[in-house]
Amino acid sequence: MRVAYNEQMAELANLLGEMAGLAGSAMERATQSLLQADLALSEQVITEYDRISELSGVAEERAFALLALQAPVAGDLRSVVSGIQIVADVDRMGALALHVAKIARRRHPNHVLPEEVNGYFAEMGRIAVALGAAAQEVLVTRDPERAARLRDEDEAMDDLHRHLFSVLMDREWKHGVAAAVDITLLGRFYERFADHAVEVGRRVIFLVTGKLPSDSDDEYGIASAPR
Amino acid sequence: MRVAYNEQMAELANLLGEMAGLAGSAMERATQSLLQADLALSEQVITEYDRISELSGVAEERAFALLALQAPVAGDLRSVVSGIQIVADVDRMGALALHVAKIARRRHPNHVLPEEVNGYFAEMGRIAVALGAAAQEVLVTRDPERAARLRDEDEAMDDLHRHLFSVLMDREWKHGVAAAVDITLLGRFYERFADHAVEVGRRVIFLVTGKLPSDSDDEYGIASAPR
Repeated sequence: MRVAYNEQMAELANLLGEMAGLAGSAMERATQSLLQADLALSEQVITEYDRISELSGVAEERAFALLALQAPVAGDLRSVVSGIQIVADVDRMGALALHVAKIARRRHPNHVLPEEVNGYFAEMGRIAVALGAAAQEVLVTRDPERAARLRDEDEAMDDLHRHLFSVLMDREWKHGVAAAVDITLLGRFYERFADHAVEVGRRVIFLVTGKLPSDSDDEYGIASAPR
Repeated sequence: MRVAYNEQMAELANLLGEMAGLAGSAMERATQSLLQADLALSEQVITEYDRISELSGVAEERAFALLALQAPVAGDLRSVVSGIQIVADVDRMGALALHVAKIARRRHPNHVLPEEVNGYFAEMGRIAVALGAAAQEVLVTRDPERAARLRDEDEAMDDLHRHLFSVLMDREWKHGVAAAVDITLLGRFYERFADHAVEVGRRVIFLVTGKLPSDSDDEYGIASAPR
């Protein structure tokens, strides 16, 4: 029983890790499609979301089977319950990459972004990819210290997000309202992607230590945006 | 065992329903604070989110205790697992109301909204409140037909959201980029609130019928926004 539980739990953790990795690489390609107005790449991200969504279903079924067949208790039960919660976060990370790709596709052959904000999105994309990889690592290793460091990377994302808003709100903004609307949504998608990666980290910290670190989205990235 | 399970499951469903109701009334007040630039009301929504967050913790603990002590199987197990997933949705609904209130507070004593879009937010607020109440009803009654109708209300929200974007994107928009950025975020918060209510409905349909209806956020509210 215990051996079967351990094996199945490791499989579930690997599957969740794979999903986080897929979400990270989807965000990487979505960012490229955005920066280069690359339609084929947007289409690829959009098509491949089906795979993440399918894996979500598989992961939920596996977690359910673990509960039904192994009836885990105490810490083991907490691991499976956390796994169920984590599915929703990594699925959402994939959906946010999908949303970025959809905006790139909608504006094609035009570029969504004026050149002056390209650098922000290149950097937000880089952080998102790092967070996807870190979430994958944390899901497999269950290292609570590594999990806690996800929050530092999220802070870098929040800083970029704030700066991005100050660029938009600046009186010198010359690119009109439509571009600002797209950029507002895109910025929100990257920020939420990072929040979900942090949430994965929190869940892993919880299942290892039994303590849930405080929530992060309360802060709300643009709280100090000027007007 | 069975009696204890039934009692505890009913308690969990009531608690989730209470959370959905609180999220709906938080969105009602957040909308009022937005329309009337009412600082006291924004502050109240912000403070009361702590209550929703606290109930999320209680609901998760109860679901966990149900699994640990009653070791439910089959349909009963599926109900508890769905309950764990629903906690995240209703908590998020509360957080989205909080975000609306925070934007209202940040711009106080100014109004966030130019008068011409007040009507959109009044109506989106009305639908959000109805969706919160419907989610509460569905959680308690487990009526799959009522749950399926949540999607119609969500469609009304999506329509409003699309129209709102066409107002923003219009060349006649005279209220500047900063207002457009706030409105973009606010529109997104209402749309996501509705999506989470639909998700609650989907989960209830699943636990009653064993079939999960297809996802809705793929559609992405502003897909047909003009530019």
